[in-house]
Amino acid sequence: MISVFEHPWLGGLFGDDEAAALWSPEAQLDHFRAFEAALARALEQSGLVPSGHGAAAASVIETADIDLQGLARGTGTDGLPIPNLVKQLRAVAGDYRAAVHTGATSQDVMDTALSLTLKTLTDLLQLRLKELDATLGGLTQTQGTNALMGRTRMQAALPITVADRLASWRQPLASHVAALEGLRPQVERLQLGGAVGTRGDFGEAGPQIAAQIAKELTLIDGPVWHTDRSGVAAYAGCLSLITGSLGKIGQDVALMAQQGIDDVTLTVGGGSSAMPHKSNPVLAELLMTLARFNATQLSGVHHALVHEQERSGAAWMLEWMILPQMSVTTARALTASQALCAQIRAVGKA
Amino acid sequence: MISVFEHPWLGGLFGDDEAAALWSPEAQLDHFRAFEAALARALEQSGLVPSGHGAAAASVIETADIDLQGLARGTGTDGLPIPNLVKQLRAVAGDYRAAVHTGATSQDVMDTALSLTLKTLTDLLQLRLKELDATLGGLTQTQGTNALMGRTRMQAALPITVADRLASWRQPLASHVAALEGLRPQVERLQLGGAVGTRGDFGEAGPQIAAQIAKELTLIDGPVWHTDRSGVAAYAGCLSLITGSLGKIGQDVALMAQQGIDDVTLTVGGGSSAMPHKSNPVLAELLMTLARFNATQLSGVHHALVHEQERSGAAWMLEWMILPQMSVTTARALTASQALCAQIRAVGKA
Amino acid sequence: MISVFEHPWLGGLFGDDEAAALWSPEAQLDHFRAFEAALARALEQSGLVPSGHGAAAASVIETADIDLQGLARGTGTDGLPIPNLVKQLRAVAGDYRAAVHTGATSQDVMDTALSLTLKTLTDLLQLRLKELDATLGGLTQTQGTNALMGRTRMQAALPITVADRLASWRQPLASHVAALEGLRPQVERLQLGGAVGTRGDFGEAGPQIAAQIAKELTLIDGPVWHTDRSGVAAYAGCLSLITGSLGKIGQDVALMAQQGIDDVTLTVGGGSSAMPHKSNPVLAELLMTLARFNATQLSGVHHALVHEQERSGAAWMLEWMILPQMSVTTARALTASQALCAQIRAVGKA
Amino acid sequence: MISVFEHPWLGGLFGDDEAAALWSPEAQLDHFRAFEAALARALEQSGLVPSGHGAAAASVIETADIDLQGLARGTGTDGLPIPNLVKQLRAVAGDYRAAVHTGATSQDVMDTALSLTLKTLTDLLQLRLKELDATLGGLTQTQGTNALMGRTRMQAALPITVADRLASWRQPLASHVAALEGLRPQVERLQLGGAVGTRGDFGEAGPQIAAQIAKELTLIDGPVWHTDRSGVAAYAGCLSLITGSLGKIGQDVALMAQQGIDDVTLTVGGGSSAMPHKSNPVLAELLMTLARFNATQLSGVHHALVHEQERSGAAWMLEWMILPQMSVTTARALTASQALCAQIRAVGKA
Repeated sequence: MISVFEHPWLGGLFGDDEAAALWSPEAQLDHFRAFEAALARALEQSGLVPSGHGAAAASVIETADIDLQGLARGTGTDGLPIPNLVKQLRAVAGDYRAAVHTGATSQDVMDTALSLTLKTLTDLLQLRLKELDATLGGLTQTQGTNALMGRTRMQAALPITVADRLASWRQPLASHVAALEGLRPQVERLQLGGAVGTRGDFGEAGPQIAAQIAKELTLIDGPVWHTDRSGVAAYAGCLSLITGSLGKIGQDVALMAQQGIDDVTLTVGGGSSAMPHKSNPVLAELLMTLARFNATQLSGVHHALVHEQERSGAAWMLEWMILPQMSVTTARALTASQALCAQIRAVGKA
Repeated sequence: MISVFEHPWLGGLFGDDEAAALWSPEAQLDHFRAFEAALARALEQSGLVPSGHGAAAASVIETADIDLQGLARGTGTDGLPIPNLVKQLRAVAGDYRAAVHTGATSQDVMDTALSLTLKTLTDLLQLRLKELDATLGGLTQTQGTNALMGRTRMQAALPITVADRLASWRQPLASHVAALEGLRPQVERLQLGGAVGTRGDFGEAGPQIAAQIAKELTLIDGPVWHTDRSGVAAYAGCLSLITGSLGKIGQDVALMAQQGIDDVTLTVGGGSSAMPHKSNPVLAELLMTLARFNATQLSGVHHALVHEQERSGAAWMLEWMILPQMSVTTARALTASQALCAQIRAVGKA
Repeated sequence: MISVFEHPWLGGLFGDDEAAALWSPEAQLDHFRAFEAALARALEQSGLVPSGHGAAAASVIETADIDLQGLARGTGTDGLPIPNLVKQLRAVAGDYRAAVHTGATSQDVMDTALSLTLKTLTDLLQLRLKELDATLGGLTQTQGTNALMGRTRMQAALPITVADRLASWRQPLASHVAALEGLRPQVERLQLGGAVGTRGDFGEAGPQIAAQIAKELTLIDGPVWHTDRSGVAAYAGCLSLITGSLGKIGQDVALMAQQGIDDVTLTVGGGSSAMPHKSNPVLAELLMTLARFNATQLSGVHHALVHEQERSGAAWMLEWMILPQMSVTTARALTASQALCAQIRAVGKA
Repeated sequence: MISVFEHPWLGGLFGDDEAAALWSPEAQLDHFRAFEAALARALEQSGLVPSGHGAAAASVIETADIDLQGLARGTGTDGLPIPNLVKQLRAVAGDYRAAVHTGATSQDVMDTALSLTLKTLTDLLQLRLKELDATLGGLTQTQGTNALMGRTRMQAALPITVADRLASWRQPLASHVAALEGLRPQVERLQLGGAVGTRGDFGEAGPQIAAQIAKELTLIDGPVWHTDRSGVAAYAGCLSLITGSLGKIGQDVALMAQQGIDDVTLTVGGGSSAMPHKSNPVLAELLMTLARFNATQLSGVHHALVHEQERSGAAWMLEWMILPQMSVTTARALTASQALCAQIRAVGKA
């Protein structure tokens, strides 16, 4: 196991089942099916396939057994799973095969699946950001008037209150919720371009087909974006902003928990194999780790903006390697922050 | 000379005088003065210094000769120039010294100066983005109907038109203009927090003083943001999105200009010391370089989000090292894109 | 599934079973056992536990059933699996429990396991580098005299031979083999420091115990390196050098395979769902992707050099997230390079 | 001023005159001249230019006034300064012009200049690493037996001595000296390839000419490396290893200097504009900043490994933007470490 998110034991620390589920093969395959089925129905509605063929094909698409090993073999050869998936679906669709994937290309399927995934991810992150903000609000109510030494440049400066420190933690959370909302139009978009992004196979029916698919998938209809990865990169930036803000909380808590500083008391921490008496601020450290991980990854997503011509396999694959990891990292940082707050027994001096 | 932007000869390729001027010592010192003068006036208006003292101090602040070597020495000792600057100003202000910098801290001065800088930078970038969009619009009008082979995954795919390719170049530009506009509320903000971010020295007058300074500097009034670097990091992300989009154009042009492909004819390119016959697509290459540079730097700005306690010297200084470079890189990528478009004699086949 | 290396279908493209096996939970657990068993035996030999106890404990350590869910739970709490593992082992060891893990700390176990892993990884990578070099040598023999247009700055320059181009591909491979060899003393080291790196619990026996464990594990004995991550970071750098060199090959092949350039003919490439006639240079693109992935990740490993005090949880965990991925990326780039070479039917003009 | 290294006041903190001098335009131009003069003499010695012409041309090359504005204009057009430099030199050389730059290309001049620069940089860094090691050795002698609380995962663990902590700081320094030495063969190499790296214009005389130039410049003779950037990237990695190790020291000192921890007493620190009583550990923070800066930059140099075909303008220019900055960052981190050590009045408890 290479991935800490799915590792038998490291997964107990880094994993986030809810976020991982959004990127699961099942969820991705469902999105692929949803796109292809919506396309089949739209092809019929636009008269590009005979009446009844779109519905019949959609039914096949939605229910056909998919041979995952075939997908893996196909991905090894083709660089992506869709050609093999389409082949499998068409084989089952028989006479209705012309309603399967016609006019579309692999990137349409996968980028639209990405849109559907990010939509659910945004929902999850916004919920968690609000929950964390509420938790910190609660801490402010119970501990906010406690005294704390304000520290600047790692030195004691002047007294502040716990409420002041907590306010600095909370401030970015609301703006992240808003930023995620503001990005929805850029990432929850249908991608439908066909072979070279011109929707050439649909003739006059292109706009109608796109509108119908977008409506069915509750995505935004608009121009193709297969070569414009700005939305994806902006989204990744937002993920890293979130983990960065939470990393600041983690760094603060780790500093506050030092003996001699004693600005925070945690009810429980991680044990040591050599020093059972120790109580390590594991979750605080984890928040720092996750922040630095995403800050590192973000660079890769921005390198993928150099997406040449009408489709870059090289740049696109780089997104696949990084974006799911950044997502789970961000989601996990939010649950870890909540868990860390729950460990706080006291902050500052009453 | 370490910096390519200011290097005697490399500056001829990488430099951007207009953007560099926004970050010049003169401009920065002007911003420092503007903040301190506005503060002095606000202190008077709030009654925290005697009548007339604020105006007198402001006059000193705005006109005093500053010893730059003193600033350099002070920066070497203090880690930032403001303590020495304040010392110099107070020495000149004499009896009005209590109106100089009272209630503020170094970060207030420097972060507010950053806000003022980014405000002018946004203006510059938006203007250039629109100009580039217009240039590409003009190319679309003159060359748009020409035929071009659509290329995916570095292979010929299906014919498209030049207008299709140009549309993919233009599409992100408008969204970058909008994104920069959308970031104004996050980066064009007054920072006024005092020693530990609580505006403690102002007592009840804090909100009034902040409102007045913000108004005078035409910045947004709001909560302190000294430890919340989200706005700065989001802005850096936007810079890298811009260079990424332009890097895609550069990559495309370099590919189009290959002999055997011949999708574009450039009127002029760079000469070779060994092969005078060659015409290198220097500006296209430069766009790729600048994109990868910013994609790299962005990571550093996101690492700086882990800004501990009430002020992190370490994280903050990292911003200073990177943000000006990203700014000039972005600005230069826009002029290089314009210059590259001007070199295009023909695209596609008429 | 978050990880492309282990994904049901993306694994068909990104996966490398042989490299993944080196990082498998089984392999890691074996390394943990090997360290603890060697320690138990060394404790006995040094007289720190009664005669027979070390051997008995080692036997338990090597054969005890380990509850993986317990490890996961423990990792969630403690931030690493070793405290729980030790607890499990000690429970089984009964009267011999004093010979389990005594004097060691979690990092000793995990960093030594890392050393054992990197040792096998170096073997694998060196073998593959040599195989690739041989393959390119073979290509040089069969195609080397063919003519090729030398290209600089994306423009035709002067004629070269295929042998010239291939020589530029081969040149770094030998130096990577040597660099990996040169790094062995820095990464194939026993880590044995105990709670704070001083081997305090071993008293006078520290050097003897370390020497014996190192000998048994065929690792290098030497000073503790728990806070000095230079070796790890240098190793990661070497991984990225390898993928960078292979990324250059991939970039070259993708450029050579363009229609109109036709410098290479590939027997097989990836299919398109929209254009069955296409033959995409998928493996060449993959090499570029893997190069950029590792170039991105390397930064994170270098950030982890800031490893505070006697042990940094935050910095150390960042290594866990990144290093296994870089390893598999590098290993996969080597098999993909081999496979790409096997697809080459002709290079240059005979 | 964009660059903190050369900024009127920030330069007082970030600047390093000695390191900057190695990259100064004067030094670079000297290296360019040295290469061209050595080439001219070698051309004569090999009989490729008439007797006396090489020496005469070399004399011109070494003494000709160079119009820097011409270099800047040329760089703007050609993407590098050498074509214009050669034009200027040939104009002055008159009848001996055939001995100027014949058989070479711009990259030969600039990469060889890089080799000469890195050679002096290695000398400087090795010297400073040894000096720092000696300083830490001195601290060990005077303070080594003092008691210190060992801290792991940001928590008090078990007592250690100051000598233990200092040993962890010193350990990587010696290995960095060795690593720099080990890299000399990879970076102190002549680059001489001509237009496409084949030394084509030299005919049979290629090896002889290369050998002679290498000897004159005291560089290593060997195969061309214009497209193999492994040496450059490995060197950059070594720079970041150094700053990472020093960043760990800075992080430790900043943590030790906290009130409540009081593990170190610094004689002097940075002042605050709001709190004159404060003494900020500015140099300790600076070390962290410089470590994170280099860790960020390193990624860019590794992206530049994807250096396509016989010369990549895009990848090469990325090195120019980053490598000088990494160099000065590293050099400055060493002087800052020395200065920080000099500020240490006491460590631990006597």
